[in-house]
Formats: sequence, structure tokens, C-alpha cells
Amino acid sequence: KVKEHSTSDRWHVPWYDRFVQPCLVELLGSALFIFIGCLSVIQNQSDTGSLQPAVAQGLALSLLVAILGNISGGHFNPAVSLVAMLIGGLNLIMLFPYWICQLCGGLIGAALAKAVSSEDRYWNASGAAFVTVQEPGQVLGAVVAEVVLTILLALVVCIGVINERTHDALAPFFVGFSVIVAVLAGGAVSGACMNPARAFGPAVMTNHWDFHWIYWLGPLLGSLFVGVLVRLFSGNGKNSPIQKGR
Amino acid sequence: KVKEHSTSDRWHVPWYDRFVQPCLVELLGSALFIFIGCLSVIQNQSDTGSLQPAVAQGLALSLLVAILGNISGGHFNPAVSLVAMLIGGLNLIMLFPYWICQLCGGLIGAALAKAVSSEDRYWNASGAAFVTVQEPGQVLGAVVAEVVLTILLALVVCIGVINERTHDALAPFFVGFSVIVAVLAGGAVSGACMNPARAFGPAVMTNHWDFHWIYWLGPLLGSLFVGVLVRLFSGNGKNSPIQKGR
Amino acid sequence: KVKEHSTSDRWHVPWYDRFVQPCLVELLGSALFIFIGCLSVIQNQSDTGSLQPAVAQGLALSLLVAILGNISGGHFNPAVSLVAMLIGGLNLIMLFPYWICQLCGGLIGAALAKAVSSEDRYWNASGAAFVTVQEPGQVLGAVVAEVVLTILLALVVCIGVINERTHDALAPFFVGFSVIVAVLAGGAVSGACMNPARAFGPAVMTNHWDFHWIYWLGPLLGSLFVGVLVRLFSGNGKNSPIQKGR
Amino acid sequence: KVKEHSTSDRWHVPWYDRFVQPCLVELLGSALFIFIGCLSVIQNQSDTGSLQPAVAQGLALSLLVAILGNISGGHFNPAVSLVAMLIGGLNLIMLFPYWICQLCGGLIGAALAKAVSSEDRYWNASGAAFVTVQEPGQVLGAVVAEVVLTILLALVVCIGVINERTHDALAPFFVGFSVIVAVLAGGAVSGACMNPARAFGPAVMTNHWDFHWIYWLGPLLGSLFVGVLVRLFSGNGKNSPIQKGR
Repeated sequence: KVKEHSTSDRWHVPWYDRFVQPCLVELLGSALFIFIGCLSVIQNQSDTGSLQPAVAQGLALSLLVAILGNISGGHFNPAVSLVAMLIGGLNLIMLFPYWICQLCGGLIGAALAKAVSSEDRYWNASGAAFVTVQEPGQVLGAVVAEVVLTILLALVVCIGVINERTHDALAPFFVGFSVIVAVLAGGAVSGACMNPARAFGPAVMTNHWDFHWIYWLGPLLGSLFVGVLVRLFSGNGKNSPIQKGR
Repeated sequence: KVKEHSTSDRWHVPWYDRFVQPCLVELLGSALFIFIGCLSVIQNQSDTGSLQPAVAQGLALSLLVAILGNISGGHFNPAVSLVAMLIGGLNLIMLFPYWICQLCGGLIGAALAKAVSSEDRYWNASGAAFVTVQEPGQVLGAVVAEVVLTILLALVVCIGVINERTHDALAPFFVGFSVIVAVLAGGAVSGACMNPARAFGPAVMTNHWDFHWIYWLGPLLGSLFVGVLVRLFSGNGKNSPIQKGR
Repeated sequence: KVKEHSTSDRWHVPWYDRFVQPCLVELLGSALFIFIGCLSVIQNQSDTGSLQPAVAQGLALSLLVAILGNISGGHFNPAVSLVAMLIGGLNLIMLFPYWICQLCGGLIGAALAKAVSSEDRYWNASGAAFVTVQEPGQVLGAVVAEVVLTILLALVVCIGVINERTHDALAPFFVGFSVIVAVLAGGAVSGACMNPARAFGPAVMTNHWDFHWIYWLGPLLGSLFVGVLVRLFSGNGKNSPIQKGR
Repeated sequence: KVKEHSTSDRWHVPWYDRFVQPCLVELLGSALFIFIGCLSVIQNQSDTGSLQPAVAQGLALSLLVAILGNISGGHFNPAVSLVAMLIGGLNLIMLFPYWICQLCGGLIGAALAKAVSSEDRYWNASGAAFVTVQEPGQVLGAVVAEVVLTILLALVVCIGVINERTHDALAPFFVGFSVIVAVLAGGAVSGACMNPARAFGPAVMTNHWDFHWIYWLGPLLGSLFVGVLVRLFSGNGKNSPIQKGR
């Protein structure tokens, strides 16, 4: 009911609607999401746990997917765009434009968060860059956590949002829940990033690049795994056991 | 299903239903929302972060939009009424009556919150007036934060609530989520008001007017921006790329 | 879709289904709700604010309304049964049986919460009885808070749950939200009880009766106000402006 | 709308879809759920109450039921599989394979949580094993709490998820809410486990078996009670008073 107009129909509308608008929406959505994400980390008092940034980021993603998802798919995350492409929810030629828009959005969001924060709060929180991993001994755990948490996020996205046969009006809630859950569970292990664009923006702003590769490798590995898994399970896509169940 | 009776049909029912009832509902809703908003700030212990006022205000707005939204549109906020008017969801002649009702509601809510609170708790929390901005150096950041957060709120309202073609039963949740997200992310920057009526009520009650203009300028600028953006994108309103997607 | 079988149809099924089963369900639901409510207060650490009891009670009521609401209406609260009766959602002869079941449920829930708690935690939290009001100076504020918060709850119940023309599948969420909001906003003023059965159970268990009448007067006044208001607005019930909007 | 393909139809598809896939999904889901559950306990700071593990586990179960529930039923819990079998939502021959997959999933989840956590945090939280009950005097309260809280969970599962006549798209939310509510209310009494697989995994990893039987006896007793209750109430299953109401 909510999304009567399917993604495939959109390919009959002109060039602007097919290419430019989705990219602009990814840029706007990523900027808003990463502005909220960075600001909620910067403003969080360390003695109140990670509930505030978890809820802020989860609900922000939830509502952005709800209001913008029907235009661009509501990825706002290079790893989600990768899994969307793998399972056929995004045209291959749109992957790199999406990635560039998401990274630019990340930069804009992180810059805006820096602009509105006071200096001491900003540097106190390391500018919302991921500084959880401080020594080589933590690397393996952090990579495993990023992979597993991204698997959870990508499963939700695959089954709930992108796949036309199964998308439903409640999917934005579950996408948001997966972010809340990931931050609450994995926040102290790896930061629960799951999103290279979220890591990239603050890294540029603070020039903090230690172990930055973890937040590219982990999320992309996780979404690659889910993409392959879903393709294997769904066979020719017509009589897939996964989609059949709904 | 939930809102079978569209706003435009209401113009065929008599004068009372068209003008008086929506205004009374805006007054009641604003009073309840701002009573909850002020009280949750007054009762919040400062060492537990801003999760309590964020959740209280977000869920309160969510349920007020759900139960009263079909009568008045569920604005309870001059900035939301402005954007609703700009995109055609509110008749221009209703804008000023709505604003007056919302400001009166804000006064009633703030007065009621003062009445039920103990003196020391009330003044300890500055009567829930916005006192985050204390010096000129914080002004620019606060204005930017109010504008950006109001853009998020107004986007949700535009695409989810007011526009008849796209409204759906889940919109009240996302309106509430945008308030939770804004308070968690921007609470320490500007107070995350986004609502001149919410700022006006406690300002009168406590006679605190320092930097009060921020909470008029920021929200109205943000909603003006979204109103213009949506009109530009939606063209003649029939084959708008934004609404077409749903 | 969810509640295809309306309340009025139930009067054609036998005596057991019409009278005994709803009462048993009110007893079970009140016992579970008040068990959860008391336990979440007893186990709450005082330095973490009132978010834990607020969320526990709100979500508990939400899910009990969702799973049991179609059998008994999902009141679990004498004030809600009163407003349901006033607006025609409950037969007058069922009001007193419902009240007795709810009070018995409150007793069972409070006794069960006492049974599973350790002695020191139990008495530390005053057995979850309402001890917020300690001196006569606080009485007026507490009564006003109970009345206003019950108005919010009763509005949600009226428009969302009981009235057949407007009930929808999302109503249980908004009923739960109204409890979360009330506890976060009014917890430190009056305890945000809104439910005589919730006050009665722990009062018996701990033999604490100071200012107990507040938790009967406030909620019943609030629901009386909403009941009268809704009847006035809805006129003959056919072309009511309130229900027409949905 | 969401689940057009009912469970009973699945028995016409081949052996793999009927037996192997549901078991694999139970294994995957239990592993993810118990990984999240353990990690959220290990990373929780003790001074912020139990809100973080409550929300993390509740929302994780909620989204796993939403995305995997249509394949396996979304139990991830031996007690839920028991009640599903009792009320006819699971074939008896699938009960033991499900139990084995859930216990293996619990082991994998607990091992993964150990792998990504730092040594000191892990042992500080006793490896997320249930250590709430320390002395014989607490046993009775803990068993009663586990039974009552599992009754609430099983009621939600029965009426909302398994029973084909009444399942609806919102059931995953209420299943998640019941976990949040249980942890907030009973976390300090018994740990609010309600799931033998959740208790088994960390018990193996930390070799902590004191009072481990509580987390088998309590949940299984609670689900047995609900299974018998629902069968009694629903009579021959056609004109059941419980299902009739929806």
C-alpha cells in the first residue's frame, strides 16, 4: 500500500528522476544521518552508557529510510549499496555514484557537526571518529564484530527493504532497530560503525586514520557475505525459499 | 484505511468543524505537548543525560499526532503550520489562528507545569526555558542546529503527514522519532526546540528572553527551506517525483 | 483487519464468553501489568532516573492491550473502564465486575512482586507503593498532574481503542506511549499512577494509605472529564466531528 | 498481507525446505540473538541500570522474528518451541531438531561474544552467564519470576505469532517488547532469561553451572502452562473464544 510504485517502474521515467534525484537524496540523507550520528556521540556524557547515541542513530536511520527510501532505496551506507547491488536491488552503474554521494554526505554531516559543537566537547569526543580500537590486540575482535553486526543489518535490509517481493511498511523500523542493537552490543568492541561513510567523514575532519581500514573491510565483508548467501538461497529468484515464505 | 476522511472533504462540513474545532484541538494538543515537554525537563536529573526528556517529548508528540492529527493536522508548532501552509496542507487564512492557538497552548502548558512542580525543582531547571545558549559565541552553532533539525522534522511532516497522497498510518511514529533524535543529538547545542510555541510558553513564565529569537528564527527558516524545496521538487503537484515514488 | 470481530457481536455468544471470560482476562492482565509495574519500581536503581519503570510499564501495557484487548477491551484500570462505560464501549452492568477483577488483579500482582523480591530491595522501594506525596503542600500539584495525565491516557483509549469506528491496529502502541510519557513527565510529581488498581495493590501489601485517595480521585476525575467531553463532541454518535475525521 | 504464505502450505514443498532450512534458520537466528544478548551484558556498565541489555535483546529478537519468522517460526528459544508444539504451530518431530539447533546456536553466539570481548570485560561480567542467584534463599523467587515472565512471552508468541488465524504484522514488536519488559522488571530477581539456550551457551563457555537448572525448569514450566491454557480455552480450535475475538 505504502510503496505502490516499484523500483523497476522508475526506469521508464526520464534521466533526471532515474539518476540525479536518487543521488541527491543519498547525499542529503547521508549528510543528515551522519550529522545526527556524530552530534549524538559528541554530546553524549560518557557516564550514561551508549543508549543515547544508539537510539539517536537508530531512529534517525529509521525515519530517513521511511521518508526517503522510496526515492533512492534509503541506503546512506556504501555497504548497504553493495549488498543491494549484489541481490539485484541496485543497478551496477549506480554503485559508484551512490558511494561517492554517501562519502560526500558523510563529509558534509561531519563538518556540520563540528561547526555546531563547542571546541572542547568536540575534541573530548575525538570528533566522533572511531577511536575504540587503540592497539593491535583489539583488531581481530573489532573486525569480527563489524562483520557480524553488518550481517544483521544487511539481512534486515535485504529481506525487508530492497527486495520488492517482500518489502513492507514496517521495514524502516527494523533497519533502525538493527542499528540500536548493534551500538548497544558492539559499541565498546569496535564502535559498531557498519558504515564506511560514517567512519570516513569524522576521520577526514579530525585527521584520525588509525585502524580506519577496519570500518571499510568489516562492513563490506559482512554485506558481501549476505549478498552471496541470499543469492545462493534464492536460486533463480522466482521460487526462492526465502521469499516464498512471506 | 486509518484516515479515510481526507482534509479536503472537511471543507464541505459547517463553519464550526472547519474553523473552530481545528483551532481548539491545536490549543489542547499544544497545551498537553508543552506541559509534558516542560515537566519532563523540570523532573529530569541532570546526571542521566537527555534520554528522559527526549523520549517523553517524542512519544507525546507521536501520540498527539495519532489521536488529534485527523482533526487539525496535528501541528502543535508554528513552524510546522508554516511548512504545511507552504506545501498546500493548510489554508492561508488558518495560519494566524493556528499560531495564536499554539502560543496560547504553550502558555497554558508551561503554566500548568509550573503549577504542579515544587518551587526548587522548577527554578533548578530554569522552568524548562531554553538557557543552553549563554554567550554570543554559541549563537551561530545554535541557529544552524535549529535550522538543520527543523529540516528533518519538516521533511517527516511534509512527506508523511500533511500531503494527502502520501500520508500513512505510521507517520505519527516518525514525527515522534524526529523529536527524540533531535533532542538526543542537538540538546546540548541549542536545546533542540524546533518549536517557537515550546520556547514561548516557558519564556513568559520565567521572564527569560535572552537569545529567545533563536527559537523563532531557526525553526521558521528550516520549515521555509523545506517548504520551498518540496514545492520545487513536486512541480505542478500531479507528477511530482517525490510523491510519485510512494 | 486485526479486530474483525467487533465488541457488539460478542453479545450474541453465550453467557460465559460475554461475562466470565472478559472478567478473567481483566484479572489476568491486571495481575501481570501490576506485577511488572511493581517489580520494575522495586528493581530500579534510584540514580538512573525513571526511564526503566516508564519503559517497562508502558511496553507491558502495550503488549497486554495487543494480546488481550480483543477479549475484554484491555482496560486493566478502573479509570479506563469508567471512561469506556461513559462513551459506550462497556455495558454498565460490567463496570463493577471489571473494577473488582482489576483490584483483585492488582492485589495478586503486588503480592507476586513481593514474593519474588528480596526483603531489603522491597522495603527500600517502599514496596512500589506511591510515596511521592509526603506533605499536604504537594497534594494539589499531585491531583492536577494525575488529572491531566489521565486525560492524555483516556483520550488515547477513547479515540484509539474502545470506539469501534476508529480503533486501529496501532492503538496498543499509543496506549503504551501515554504511560511512558506520563511516568517520565509526572513521576516525580505524583508518581504518575493514573490507575487506582495499580495504587491499591501495593497499598494493601505495605499497609501504606497516606494520601491514597489522590490515586482514586485524580484518575477518576480525568476519565470523567474525557468521557463527558467525547460525548459532547460526538453528539448523536453518528455524525460526530471527532470520529468523522478518521 | 505480509505473510501470505501460511505455514501449512509449506508442507507441500520438498524435504529441504520443510526440514533443513527451518533448522538452519533457527541455528543462525539463535546464534545472532545470543551473540547480541551476551555482548550487550558484557559491555553494559553496571551503573546505568539494565536498560541497555533490555533494549538490545528485545529489539534484536524483534527484528530476527520479523526477518526470519516466516521461515522457521522465529523461536530461537526451546521454551517457545515447546509452546508452539503444544498449540499446534510446530510438528512434534521438529521439536528435538529445533532444540538442538537452538542450543548449538547458543553455543556459537556465546563463543563469538567471548571472541570479540576483551578478557577483563568478559570475566567482569561473568561471561554473560546467569549469576543473579547466588544462594538457596533466592531460588524460589527466581523460579517464580522465570515462570511468570515466560507466561507473558509465551502468551504473546501464542496469540501473536504462531497461531495462523491471528498472526499479524505487528507481532514481532510485541515479542520484542515482552523481552524488554521482562529484563527491566525481573533482571535483578532471576536475570530474566526465559530461554534455556540463552542460559546454556554462556554456561558452557564459562563453565558456570550453579543453579543452571532454574533456567530450564522456569521457562519450560511457563510455556507448558500457557500451552495447556490456550488448548483448554480454544476448545476444538474452530470456535475458540480466544481466537474468535480477533
